[in-house]
Amino acid sequence: TKRYSITLLPGDGIGPEVITVAKNVLKLVGSLEGIEFSFQEMPMGGAALDLTGVPLPEETLSAAQRADAVLLGAIGGYKWDKNEKHLKPETGLLQLREGLKVFANLRPATVLPQLVDSSTLKKDVAEGVDLIVVRELTGGIYFGKPRGFGTNEKGEDIGFNTEVYSTHEIDRIARVAFEIARKRRGQLCSVDKANVLEASMLWRKRVTAIASEYPDVELSHMYVDNAAMQLVRYPKQFDTIVTNNIFGDILSDEASMITGSIGMLPSASLGESGPGLFEPIHGSAPDIAGQDKANPLATILSAAMLLKYGLGEANAANRIENAVLDTLNRGFRTGDIYSTGNKLVGCKEMGEEVLKSV
Amino acid sequence: TKRYSITLLPGDGIGPEVITVAKNVLKLVGSLEGIEFSFQEMPMGGAALDLTGVPLPEETLSAAQRADAVLLGAIGGYKWDKNEKHLKPETGLLQLREGLKVFANLRPATVLPQLVDSSTLKKDVAEGVDLIVVRELTGGIYFGKPRGFGTNEKGEDIGFNTEVYSTHEIDRIARVAFEIARKRRGQLCSVDKANVLEASMLWRKRVTAIASEYPDVELSHMYVDNAAMQLVRYPKQFDTIVTNNIFGDILSDEASMITGSIGMLPSASLGESGPGLFEPIHGSAPDIAGQDKANPLATILSAAMLLKYGLGEANAANRIENAVLDTLNRGFRTGDIYSTGNKLVGCKEMGEEVLKSV
Ligand SMILES: CC(C)[C@H](C(=O)O)[C@@H](O)C(=O)O
Ligand SMILES: CC(C)[C@H](C(=O)O)[C@@H](O)C(=O)O
Repeated sequence: TKRYSITLLPGDGIGPEVITVAKNVLKLVGSLEGIEFSFQEMPMGGAALDLTGVPLPEETLSAAQRADAVLLGAIGGYKWDKNEKHLKPETGLLQLREGLKVFANLRPATVLPQLVDSSTLKKDVAEGVDLIVVRELTGGIYFGKPRGFGTNEKGEDIGFNTEVYSTHEIDRIARVAFEIARKRRGQLCSVDKANVLEASMLWRKRVTAIASEYPDVELSHMYVDNAAMQLVRYPKQFDTIVTNNIFGDILSDEASMITGSIGMLPSASLGESGPGLFEPIHGSAPDIAGQDKANPLATILSAAMLLKYGLGEANAANRIENAVLDTLNRGFRTGDIYSTGNKLVGCKEMGEEVLKSV
Repeated sequence: TKRYSITLLPGDGIGPEVITVAKNVLKLVGSLEGIEFSFQEMPMGGAALDLTGVPLPEETLSAAQRADAVLLGAIGGYKWDKNEKHLKPETGLLQLREGLKVFANLRPATVLPQLVDSSTLKKDVAEGVDLIVVRELTGGIYFGKPRGFGTNEKGEDIGFNTEVYSTHEIDRIARVAFEIARKRRGQLCSVDKANVLEASMLWRKRVTAIASEYPDVELSHMYVDNAAMQLVRYPKQFDTIVTNNIFGDILSDEASMITGSIGMLPSASLGESGPGLFEPIHGSAPDIAGQDKANPLATILSAAMLLKYGLGEANAANRIENAVLDTLNRGFRTGDIYSTGNKLVGCKEMGEEVLKSV
């Protein structure tokens, strides 16, 4: 038997509900694939703020760093919205990314045939969309210095941030993206604003240089404003997209919404080595928390990404992905993806159905 | 008779074709409303590069500065794509914005009932969309200093830019947006990334402060990643959006594409005083340049914005807007908005039909 330790960070709102379900799926799949998981639950986000006064306690970070992989539910809620910056749940998430050095955020956006009607896009535009956004996650304007508040030469208050990328940061995220594109349809679109920003000019130059290591991948470049349009106009043109932290934040969310089912979408954040961070892309949905209404499939699919990208257990990952498809084919739907003719279930029941399909 | 001087900047690609049509519309409307225009054509963009070696010659800028309003066609093309930054057509556009101090970019995105099928969004999602993005245009990361290339403490090459906003810059764009929202449906949504960026925290603070001057306008705040999603999910929720330069670049283009007819969309860029800059949002479309295929309606509607926002000639502006609607109602369509049952026309013929409708 192989043994892996997983740090679970249930977080806030619907986080604990979806994590419980995903944990059960991991356990069952593990038992079938000869994998034993040890799970350790740690507080994070608002839950950690209430318990310890900080959004990412040291014990949580060091447990995560020692684990083989980290599975996060969701963080945040109205309760902590007015907190000062260093006491916001989101700040804990940024600290976790930094602490785990997970610089590569993988955000697949797939329109499943079963759910094509959930998209607000016309059927012929939405069907068959299958893209992944590779977002740089530990650099750029999110972490760049100098940053802060001050006054300018006219004595007016200012707020400022620095968008900065180094060759090293660009090269490593480019390589991750080329590797992924190579295993997909071999097309990589790098998104930047090189007609205006120096940081983007260096980005384009380095991505173009790295392309010579991947002659089998076709590289194209697109400005971010155009990319935001093309995702709406004809999303099927995209295979793999690579972009910086802030553009990736915007475009990966736009791409998710194009699928119409953000309750279905997982994500993975990977570093050079060390544990990866896996989480559904949806938020903590405080309005439905504790009501057994959440869709656990995004977290279950995040557990599949954990197996595939985090532990190299592709067979176990496929088992989960197939079980999710089978559950959808058998007509089970949570409220967010429900359409007439299907069977409406809650979070727990959806989890049980997935277990049956495993 | 009132007299106005208009600087025309035809630019590149389809720019000259659409400007010619819009000029004829302005002339006719002027003669009916007792307005006399004097037009001065000046080179700009690639055309100026070929002629003078720079994308915005001094004569062009000073002519624009002396005019009552400036109407731009489109700039750019493959030919100049590999130019160094200071010799790119786009750089000329940034210099023009800076030179005219037009800090407020107004980008309406309206789904006309006649063209609802052009949208890739489902009919019930697209119909009735009527929003405007107010983008800050002369600040933020586009112009912030320091910017450039260098090396970091590890000796790696870096590229960097500064996102910076002052209270003065935020206050004045906020006031423009509140004024516009007040004349529309009274709802202003300010978009930022205040959960991460200090520049956005100051933005949110100042927009909130300015709101007290506009008790009749309802202010809300949204993070930029969420805004990118909501534009796809339910665009009708938006009335007026105000945001910074780079987020506005991305979101205004996304909003445009949601209408499905970017050949229809105008824009206005306004300063404290002095001439405004008016231009269609579409590009120079080099692939169809010179073929009489371009849709001139975006430029004609930009001329309407010029009359309304630039010269305060609301009656003349309405005349143009009504003429465009009437022409669509009579079934005339250029290729980009054509659907069966309508009459396919070229750029010139579309212009002639609009003249008939004036
Ligand atoms: C919560 C926030 C700081 C975060 C980000 O902007 O990275 C979120 O939007 C995300 O994309 O995971
Ligand atoms: C051409 C480019 C510099 C420009 C911008 O980013 O502002 C364009 O995209 C626009 O939105 O007008």
